[in-house]
Amino acid sequence: MANFLSDNSLLSELYSIDREGYALGGALALMHWDQEVYMPPKGIELRAASIASLSGVVHDYSTNPRIRELIHKLEAEIKRAPDKFTNIDRAYIRQARRDFELSTKLPRKFVQQFSETVSRATQSWQSAKEEDNFDIFRPDLEKILDLSLEKAEYIGYKNSPYDALLDLHEVGATEKWIDDVFREVKDKTVSLLRRIEQKGVIMNDRILFGDFDLENQSIFARELVEWLGYDLSAGRIDLSSHPFTIDFGGPQDVRITTRVRRDQVNYALMSTIHETGHAVYEQRVNPEFTGSSLSSGVSLGIHESQSRFFENQVGRSLPFWRHWYSRLQGHYPDQLPPDGLREFYTAINLVRPSLIRTEADELTYNLHIILRFEIEKGLVSKKYQVRDLPEIWREKMREYIGIVPETNREGVLQDVHWSHGSFGYFPTYTLGNLYSAQFAHKMSEALDWQGEIEKGDFSAVRSWLSENIHQYGKVYWPDELTIKVTGETLNPKHFVDYLEDKYSEIYQL
Amino acid sequence: MANFLSDNSLLSELYSIDREGYALGGALALMHWDQEVYMPPKGIELRAASIASLSGVVHDYSTNPRIRELIHKLEAEIKRAPDKFTNIDRAYIRQARRDFELSTKLPRKFVQQFSETVSRATQSWQSAKEEDNFDIFRPDLEKILDLSLEKAEYIGYKNSPYDALLDLHEVGATEKWIDDVFREVKDKTVSLLRRIEQKGVIMNDRILFGDFDLENQSIFARELVEWLGYDLSAGRIDLSSHPFTIDFGGPQDVRITTRVRRDQVNYALMSTIHETGHAVYEQRVNPEFTGSSLSSGVSLGIHESQSRFFENQVGRSLPFWRHWYSRLQGHYPDQLPPDGLREFYTAINLVRPSLIRTEADELTYNLHIILRFEIEKGLVSKKYQVRDLPEIWREKMREYIGIVPETNREGVLQDVHWSHGSFGYFPTYTLGNLYSAQFAHKMSEALDWQGEIEKGDFSAVRSWLSENIHQYGKVYWPDELTIKVTGETLNPKHFVDYLEDKYSEIYQL
Repeated sequence: MANFLSDNSLLSELYSIDREGYALGGALALMHWDQEVYMPPKGIELRAASIASLSGVVHDYSTNPRIRELIHKLEAEIKRAPDKFTNIDRAYIRQARRDFELSTKLPRKFVQQFSETVSRATQSWQSAKEEDNFDIFRPDLEKILDLSLEKAEYIGYKNSPYDALLDLHEVGATEKWIDDVFREVKDKTVSLLRRIEQKGVIMNDRILFGDFDLENQSIFARELVEWLGYDLSAGRIDLSSHPFTIDFGGPQDVRITTRVRRDQVNYALMSTIHETGHAVYEQRVNPEFTGSSLSSGVSLGIHESQSRFFENQVGRSLPFWRHWYSRLQGHYPDQLPPDGLREFYTAINLVRPSLIRTEADELTYNLHIILRFEIEKGLVSKKYQVRDLPEIWREKMREYIGIVPETNREGVLQDVHWSHGSFGYFPTYTLGNLYSAQFAHKMSEALDWQGEIEKGDFSAVRSWLSENIHQYGKVYWPDELTIKVTGETLNPKHFVDYLEDKYSEIYQL
Repeated sequence: MANFLSDNSLLSELYSIDREGYALGGALALMHWDQEVYMPPKGIELRAASIASLSGVVHDYSTNPRIRELIHKLEAEIKRAPDKFTNIDRAYIRQARRDFELSTKLPRKFVQQFSETVSRATQSWQSAKEEDNFDIFRPDLEKILDLSLEKAEYIGYKNSPYDALLDLHEVGATEKWIDDVFREVKDKTVSLLRRIEQKGVIMNDRILFGDFDLENQSIFARELVEWLGYDLSAGRIDLSSHPFTIDFGGPQDVRITTRVRRDQVNYALMSTIHETGHAVYEQRVNPEFTGSSLSSGVSLGIHESQSRFFENQVGRSLPFWRHWYSRLQGHYPDQLPPDGLREFYTAINLVRPSLIRTEADELTYNLHIILRFEIEKGLVSKKYQVRDLPEIWREKMREYIGIVPETNREGVLQDVHWSHGSFGYFPTYTLGNLYSAQFAHKMSEALDWQGEIEKGDFSAVRSWLSENIHQYGKVYWPDELTIKVTGETLNPKHFVDYLEDKYSEIYQL
């Protein structure tokens, strides 16, 4: 019997089915990890077959009809004897119901087909990007879009098929809700951008470029991620074309990947800090939940709130660099000036329209997301065709960001996510920004957290996050968690205020 | 339908069950690979649970009662209409029968228990070795021995439980047969060693030691393994404490690991060449067999014949180094003299009693194996107790090799194999030496293969091996293959002659 559940034979049986499925899911996750970081290119067909077979087996476990019976019986028993169940028990049963329903709505054959397509598409996307040839990826992307629409039909929705895909990544999210929330962010971003332009302060980021040997980058990154709370004896850092974090069913093995450039000191660094935010969240989920439906972060938006908080509110803050700049400078005395703190800080916060989302500044970043959100809406509603995406991408870049990519590699092919079949995923990045500002605002009431960071101590921040957010895994759903932590539902005001404060200071608005 | 099988609905059904099991087995293999090379230490419990669950699922696939029905029906149809079946069909059905029988003899629960124990034992062996403390490993080794004896009972045997374990790794091998074969090798080895001692030629291997930077070692190794025929776009090289080769159900992804030392130029090199022999075998199995019972090399002895051939008959030969020495010297001009070929050649063939099997010279190597063979026999017959192994090891080392390890790390804990539960495995190393000499003798009749190597061309050797051995996978069992290739069953004379020729020249006997 799991320690976190009450002593009840039905709960115990549910947990033992669950745990077996998670153990197999761990093998599946490892195949995905390996495919991104170490698999030799000729292994792809064999891997696709293994992933498809195991996806089928995992699907069988997660759709075991006994789960439905157990959930029904448990729900009846909760009604009959509510005192016998804790809040954790209830959360566990609720999550089991959600997982079971999502699994049973998708036929086994469909799941196999989807995962086999995705496995191939990940390779064709990589080739397409390398060769800057959208047509290599196009047929797989069309297939993935068709399958995603089929998926939405299986899952069901009220207004738009896109709602079904959004809910997969963020419980309860709808196209309309995101439209409303994003409008506020977009308006504020555009107005701030205009004020920055009008102010005409000239800044540059030359300090970030030079020759930064990789070994020192790696040493510095490891020191930093451990300071941030990432336990490397329960994790590791590898390279992949798109950085990601992955776990295998519990906090004991949570891996991140990053990418690296010798000529730019913040390139690997910022994405490493970002993934560390995800990894620390996973590593701090209550270990008793291991192998159960409650293990792992609750939603992509909340997950992104942690990675964004680490990357932006911490990693792009002045207090953080007041502590870390001299250490980084010590690794690169020939590249960075000893008195370069302010120049470094403004460089990593430079607002400048750019082509690549993952390298965008905090302000324009959300415009990259809104662009993808609108393309996804358009594809799902069939307003757009896959074959027209390169052109649509260029048009929207011109409209929102004001610059146009010369290659598809820097345009529509830049992100891996569609090759993973993850429609409805991108919006969670901006949701994460909003959640993170709201959580940080709340943390300020309890703690002078920026002061702590400036003193070189991250432990109080780590504890606050663990206690208030990380430990719960999937016990509280996003809305509940937000209310529990901050006393209100998601409110874009906190993020908008944060942007206003930060950029007013940097650009002397 | 698989291309390599005749058009027959029973065969087709058998193949489709088979293929699904192999696809899942690929996931299992990846978890083992990862555990040895990249898994963070805290991940072990989670991994053990995943391996146990998936082992159970794979076991279910491979014991599907429908397989028995299909085999029975196919065997009946072969009797009725023999002309409708090719030799490949028959070999496929025979192998399916062997695999099915081995799987069904072991209960699902036993398989799970075994693989969970092994997964933990691999970690405890590693700790025990690091800390030079046999007691850390002892309880797991005792458990593994008990489980191995239980396994032998499930499998069944005529004379000794050890026969059952030997047959697992080498079809048809028995304790008595190996006793006989090894006696001839032992007698010859001891007599050659005596003659070398009496001759009193003084040689040394100082040339191998110095400061060999790792990047150049890696560059040289990659050039060399590709020359040997290892396709790195269908494989990769990583580091692990014990080098190994692993595949995932087909020739498209076959990985090797090696280990490395900066102060000794041949340390990584020889084990890399050895593993490359295994990997090239796997990569050259007929790709049509992918995901079937015929894919992969036929037995450990035949597998070892390939790795030994690469390592010793090629990698420790004068023709090979006539081609490669100047290249290696070019990487290390400050460490190796331009005219050092002969000194290098004798250094890597120096006969010197040593503690570590994997670093032993070709001549004393087999004494290390005979020692392990006798310990395994003794453990299985309960003549020996696990707790006495450190002392038994030291006694046998004194008797056979003439030196005694001061630590268990260099003694009983040096090899990973027992932690993998692989009793009956070690003898296949010496069997491999014998097979390799017999195959090489035959190759000489068709081809001046040493002349080709000296000219820097390995393609004719690769082709001969592919055509005569590699392509067949498990179509011919070891005895059949040996007869098909050489016209006789295993004959230790070829190996004994090879040793005589090689060491007579080096030591001017």
